[in-house]
Amino acid sequence: MDAIFSVSSQLARMTRFEWALLAALEANGIAPAGAVAKLEPLLDAEFLDGHSLIEESKQAGNLAIPFVRALTRALANHDKDAAAFVHFGATSQDVLDTALVLQLRDALGLIEADLGKLDSALEALVRKHARTILCGRTWLQAGPPVTLGLQLAGVLAALRRHRRRIRWAAYHALVLQFGGAVGTLASLRDKGPPVSSALAKKLDLREPVLPWHTQRDNFAEVATSLGLLVGTLGKFARDVSLWMQTEVAEVAEPAQEGRGSSSTMPHKRNPVACATILAVATRVPSLVATMLHAMLQEHERGLGTWQAEGETLPEVFCLTAAALVRVLEIAEGLEVDSARMQTNLAATQGLVFSEAVSAALARFLGRAEAHALLENASREAVRGKRHLRDVLRENPEIRRHLSDSDLDRLFDPGDYLGSTQCFIESVLENADDPHSI
Amino acid sequence: MDAIFSVSSQLARMTRFEWALLAALEANGIAPAGAVAKLEPLLDAEFLDGHSLIEESKQAGNLAIPFVRALTRALANHDKDAAAFVHFGATSQDVLDTALVLQLRDALGLIEADLGKLDSALEALVRKHARTILCGRTWLQAGPPVTLGLQLAGVLAALRRHRRRIRWAAYHALVLQFGGAVGTLASLRDKGPPVSSALAKKLDLREPVLPWHTQRDNFAEVATSLGLLVGTLGKFARDVSLWMQTEVAEVAEPAQEGRGSSSTMPHKRNPVACATILAVATRVPSLVATMLHAMLQEHERGLGTWQAEGETLPEVFCLTAAALVRVLEIAEGLEVDSARMQTNLAATQGLVFSEAVSAALARFLGRAEAHALLENASREAVRGKRHLRDVLRENPEIRRHLSDSDLDRLFDPGDYLGSTQCFIESVLENADDPHSI
Amino acid sequence: MDAIFSVSSQLARMTRFEWALLAALEANGIAPAGAVAKLEPLLDAEFLDGHSLIEESKQAGNLAIPFVRALTRALANHDKDAAAFVHFGATSQDVLDTALVLQLRDALGLIEADLGKLDSALEALVRKHARTILCGRTWLQAGPPVTLGLQLAGVLAALRRHRRRIRWAAYHALVLQFGGAVGTLASLRDKGPPVSSALAKKLDLREPVLPWHTQRDNFAEVATSLGLLVGTLGKFARDVSLWMQTEVAEVAEPAQEGRGSSSTMPHKRNPVACATILAVATRVPSLVATMLHAMLQEHERGLGTWQAEGETLPEVFCLTAAALVRVLEIAEGLEVDSARMQTNLAATQGLVFSEAVSAALARFLGRAEAHALLENASREAVRGKRHLRDVLRENPEIRRHLSDSDLDRLFDPGDYLGSTQCFIESVLENADDPHSI
Amino acid sequence: MDAIFSVSSQLARMTRFEWALLAALEANGIAPAGAVAKLEPLLDAEFLDGHSLIEESKQAGNLAIPFVRALTRALANHDKDAAAFVHFGATSQDVLDTALVLQLRDALGLIEADLGKLDSALEALVRKHARTILCGRTWLQAGPPVTLGLQLAGVLAALRRHRRRIRWAAYHALVLQFGGAVGTLASLRDKGPPVSSALAKKLDLREPVLPWHTQRDNFAEVATSLGLLVGTLGKFARDVSLWMQTEVAEVAEPAQEGRGSSSTMPHKRNPVACATILAVATRVPSLVATMLHAMLQEHERGLGTWQAEGETLPEVFCLTAAALVRVLEIAEGLEVDSARMQTNLAATQGLVFSEAVSAALARFLGRAEAHALLENASREAVRGKRHLRDVLRENPEIRRHLSDSDLDRLFDPGDYLGSTQCFIESVLENADDPHSI
Repeated sequence: MDAIFSVSSQLARMTRFEWALLAALEANGIAPAGAVAKLEPLLDAEFLDGHSLIEESKQAGNLAIPFVRALTRALANHDKDAAAFVHFGATSQDVLDTALVLQLRDALGLIEADLGKLDSALEALVRKHARTILCGRTWLQAGPPVTLGLQLAGVLAALRRHRRRIRWAAYHALVLQFGGAVGTLASLRDKGPPVSSALAKKLDLREPVLPWHTQRDNFAEVATSLGLLVGTLGKFARDVSLWMQTEVAEVAEPAQEGRGSSSTMPHKRNPVACATILAVATRVPSLVATMLHAMLQEHERGLGTWQAEGETLPEVFCLTAAALVRVLEIAEGLEVDSARMQTNLAATQGLVFSEAVSAALARFLGRAEAHALLENASREAVRGKRHLRDVLRENPEIRRHLSDSDLDRLFDPGDYLGSTQCFIESVLENADDPHSI
Repeated sequence: MDAIFSVSSQLARMTRFEWALLAALEANGIAPAGAVAKLEPLLDAEFLDGHSLIEESKQAGNLAIPFVRALTRALANHDKDAAAFVHFGATSQDVLDTALVLQLRDALGLIEADLGKLDSALEALVRKHARTILCGRTWLQAGPPVTLGLQLAGVLAALRRHRRRIRWAAYHALVLQFGGAVGTLASLRDKGPPVSSALAKKLDLREPVLPWHTQRDNFAEVATSLGLLVGTLGKFARDVSLWMQTEVAEVAEPAQEGRGSSSTMPHKRNPVACATILAVATRVPSLVATMLHAMLQEHERGLGTWQAEGETLPEVFCLTAAALVRVLEIAEGLEVDSARMQTNLAATQGLVFSEAVSAALARFLGRAEAHALLENASREAVRGKRHLRDVLRENPEIRRHLSDSDLDRLFDPGDYLGSTQCFIESVLENADDPHSI
Repeated sequence: MDAIFSVSSQLARMTRFEWALLAALEANGIAPAGAVAKLEPLLDAEFLDGHSLIEESKQAGNLAIPFVRALTRALANHDKDAAAFVHFGATSQDVLDTALVLQLRDALGLIEADLGKLDSALEALVRKHARTILCGRTWLQAGPPVTLGLQLAGVLAALRRHRRRIRWAAYHALVLQFGGAVGTLASLRDKGPPVSSALAKKLDLREPVLPWHTQRDNFAEVATSLGLLVGTLGKFARDVSLWMQTEVAEVAEPAQEGRGSSSTMPHKRNPVACATILAVATRVPSLVATMLHAMLQEHERGLGTWQAEGETLPEVFCLTAAALVRVLEIAEGLEVDSARMQTNLAATQGLVFSEAVSAALARFLGRAEAHALLENASREAVRGKRHLRDVLRENPEIRRHLSDSDLDRLFDPGDYLGSTQCFIESVLENADDPHSI
Repeated sequence: MDAIFSVSSQLARMTRFEWALLAALEANGIAPAGAVAKLEPLLDAEFLDGHSLIEESKQAGNLAIPFVRALTRALANHDKDAAAFVHFGATSQDVLDTALVLQLRDALGLIEADLGKLDSALEALVRKHARTILCGRTWLQAGPPVTLGLQLAGVLAALRRHRRRIRWAAYHALVLQFGGAVGTLASLRDKGPPVSSALAKKLDLREPVLPWHTQRDNFAEVATSLGLLVGTLGKFARDVSLWMQTEVAEVAEPAQEGRGSSSTMPHKRNPVACATILAVATRVPSLVATMLHAMLQEHERGLGTWQAEGETLPEVFCLTAAALVRVLEIAEGLEVDSARMQTNLAATQGLVFSEAVSAALARFLGRAEAHALLENASREAVRGKRHLRDVLRENPEIRRHLSDSDLDRLFDPGDYLGSTQCFIESVLENADDPHSI
């Protein structure tokens, strides 16, 4: 991802834009026949000195101005007539925006590929742990049991929504920008539409309904769609890191030589992948906000806002990609200690099944009275450090309605999973359709 | 919009959830026959004291706990057996999240309706001003001419993309939340799926693949889709306010008695609608960031994050709606001073047509040489405060290639609009399809 | 805090500004003698209808315009001559900004008072738990012991820095704004300075070096100083909520009837105070960002940016105050289970003392070799589920340097607290000086 | 600034920390005599391969772990006994945080130096343009006159507040971090305080009251203080860019070869410095929000939050420094067209003096009636495209109170500046005291 957004990669795509434009101009009889053939040897952009172009861009205001100058000069060495038509009809923003679109196409391809792998890894985990029982936890307090498969099915369902969102963002954003100085293609006179079409085709990009230079919603949507994805990745990492706590110890990040060791505490295995993901989740929301602020671009070209996007959107991509790789790493190598899950569940001394008993009693006593009865019994269990079942067994009101075997069944985690398998199957059946948007 | 997100409106929707749940429980043989009929007289939620419920919620941790208590009590006055099944199988988050979904449904309906009106108003403006010529402006500097219709067509195209985004957000978000304590519907035993289906049907909501209580991407997507919309509204207001500057004075917000007057400057007509929109555009991006941060909800119920959403999402809606109303107001009553647009264009003394001349000359001299020639002539024109055409007329190199009438044509704004009409038609032909997502 | 920022409270302070201005005008011979005496009966602002003023403000662009109109009308009923000088020399922003300054003064007073109480409560806790030993935790993994007193001393030291920051923010922000239409006080001719001084004195506010209407750094600094405070409160709540986890259970929020109970899980005591604080900590950073964005106010009065501040700054105060109250509640009633802290520490089977042994061994073997040796022994202890001390006892390399009693001492938590008491004393000795800025 | 925050610079400072620590250990009889002398040849950090350390840090979780390994190895080549005490007593966070503090010291020095230059440049401009009259502008509408000197005096006063804020932030942040694994310095036994003091002295840093590893308010305050500064810089750039608009053209960024030229519009001189500053002002507020979010660090070391700071704070510095350089550039070379300022003021046809007339009339008619009279006359002037003075001359009510020469005086910009010079002098007299905090 860093490579896609490097300066050299940007310059290569800018060169590609100018090459496609020259071809489109030639095809429409504007540039001389054979012009584009002369440009082709320059397509690798190796003649460009990124460092000095960046220096010049500080004075010029953007990278396109020194770039076009350098490209024109380089081509003029081979063919002055062809060089005369470099960048013809275009403005700096056309080449910069379209080059960014070309970078986004590759970057979104990487994200999509990693999401595909993550989908498979998570699906495998969901199947494997469909019946791996652990405490559900609300407000960071133990609750009735769930299965790890159910929890991961929730993540999987969210990821599939994200894939759809990201495809729509790609559909909107992967379009040509070509409008000339103010979006009218005026210097091409009546040749704007055919040149634009030929250019889009050459770059294999969709043509927009009109040039969109200061309507930046498509770029911002790419950022929001990744921001939403990062939220889900962050939630996953937060849960994994909480499960990894010394006192919980139900799962662990995959072990690896030298990984997560501490400089002072030799026994530790720190959740370093989670830390990376959580750092990303701490940073990306603000970058998304920047992209939204940057939408307020004045008239035909914004002042400061356009420039703010240029470094922010690549940062969002690099961070998202880094988090995604780490989530994939965890998903592919998650260590699960189901025995510890059972131990932790047992350590709650039956309190997490109070709802089960309460629901069973509600049929006889009504919900409110049953709830009150269980609340008292739970308090007594907590106070006496006893198992709730043992407290309940001594309660005559309970005994009237529930037998010992009723109670045993009510305190069996495997018996209190309700619709869990049904929900898991529902997620597994709704696989992502890679061809849908 | 304020009404939709008032506490009384929230309580009414919470009551509606409990009513639909009781109906679903009755239909599945869990609650006694006739239970829901007893609840119906309470559907207007008038028996609830919002103020005291909010007070109680501070201790309880959420509004649902005192609400369910109050509802159960109220129903118990009529039918103790029915009251025993109020909220049965559900948890606080189920009723709070689903009530919010019901509020979002209405709120999104309002937004959609206003967007429909705005689409019509803008389309009418685009048609009316398709040929209203004014300076294009880049970096806040005058550039070649555009038409107001073209600029507004850009806004219109963006709004149509927003409508699609908002419909997708609605598609994702307008789903039932019903999972019980930890998302397994365990207290309903094997009756979870049919009760859930009946409940969704009763509320006319889609059923999700599984309960989504701590996967908050759908709510966050509603916020990002509105955030993107606000960006476009803000860009529109920024442009209008710049056009309204005393020194530009090309358009004005619709006049209205008492509107935008100053307490100290009696002559002024301040852009008060723009100010409101820009204030919204300054505030919403950060609220969107909050929604993204709030996605990191721990395990089966988040701590603080879930609570952060509850006030933020309504705030995003109220602000967006306020901005939208103001944009609509402007679009429906925009005052356009096309004479002033011509005056401002003429005041640039031909400089904005340097590109036109440069492009015409490029055919003879190459782009770089033509550009350099015009750069010099432009500087001379600026220095001498003369019209660029007059400077060019004196240049023998120019005269060799361009006649007086060539030059006149090159400095005719109406002749230098390139693909403008073509782009406008393209937008007008791609109307929003209200039935598509 | 809500009361301070209510509309009626704002209107009362606006009235107070106009009263003080009229007095200053009278004292400087501009308004007629006796004018201000006629205004005094109106000082309670009860003649104002907040609701209808807000409606009018939507057209007018701000609340000051209809307010001044209403006040002038009300005074004119008593004294037409006096009424002629209401608001004379001032502009809307003068009254709105200064009224907000007056609200901030009260609001900052509340914050300061609560911070004083919190300082005492924390100091008491620090003293009480100076030697209450628990696991230190890094990366959410158990580490060597600390004391609860040390941890809270860190919070206390941070709070004292916040108090200094907030006092500086108050010093900067609690100044008069009075500049007239564009900040020159032109309509007062040469009487600007004496009127300004008299006005400031009447309101008991500092006079600034010059009117600061579009330099909004002081308001923004109030927001950043509260934002910083909220970060510390949020860190405290995050720690408390983690300590409250079922599997950790080392502390608890103070118990209270009906508090933190769950609608489905009768045994639970949810960390509801922490949830409130964490919700605030999730929301405030974004609001601070809004205040920073809003600083870019155009020329003599901003468009949209100024308006964005008006609702954001009060929101920051109300949220901060809510969090502060909850932190105080926790600090004053924190339940500490020191036995459980010991149990949790013991459950690490000595691993958290590996550093202690490693440091002791380093004297003989060097840091790197000692670290490697302990890393191996720790892994063996984990693998064999044995106490690290028992593993070490069997290691001949260790035995060469450390005796059994050496080892016992190294695994004694109370012996491995280093400079803990020294640090605690250092904090206790550096009490906040309420008179310092 | 980029150099200060480069990896090699960070490694050099980390080496410096370890060197100072070894010296402190040696001075306290823990490390062998002569140990630190052996480390000194390594102080340039050239033996370190930054690239491979970064790669290793991804597994390790932070840069300190491979760094300490590499340093220990390098020293062991010279002196095994000394190497045994490298990093003794410290943890990764100690070296990383303190190295960042050392970077901040240099970075804040640069900022302070540039702020000093900017203070001088602005002061000179304020003096030079104390009487350069231009339109005041509110809501982007022309208002009564101000002077450029007054406007810049407002900027100057704000900058002096920022310098104070930044010095306080420096006072808080430039302190040693040294706490060992969990902040107790346990592995140093009773030698914690003297080693800590010696270390702080060696690095010329203040000693904090206690280690502050997870109390991150000081770093966050550095960010907020820069964020506040950036707000003021952004406001300055927004104003300059608005004054530079083609239709306003009152000032210009300093001209320079190749600067701000357009690739398609040869005549243009774009506000490229303003664009950079505004881009920074669009980005920094969100980064500040990230720093505030990152304050919620768990227990003795945060997960993800600590890591989020590491890249964000340097980014804030680099952006701020870039903006500051550009503001300085503008302040030192601002081109001012005072003739155009007069023209623009004259073009308002006297409307901006309606307040002056209104104030003069108020003495006779009362403020409200005078305001209404001027409002009507202003409307008539606008409608008839006439000068307001000419309209007023025909009004018998006016003539009764104001003579022709009264009116002439009221429409004289130089006569309607009120307290302007007084305010300017007040700012000039309150120079920044570089020795105060």
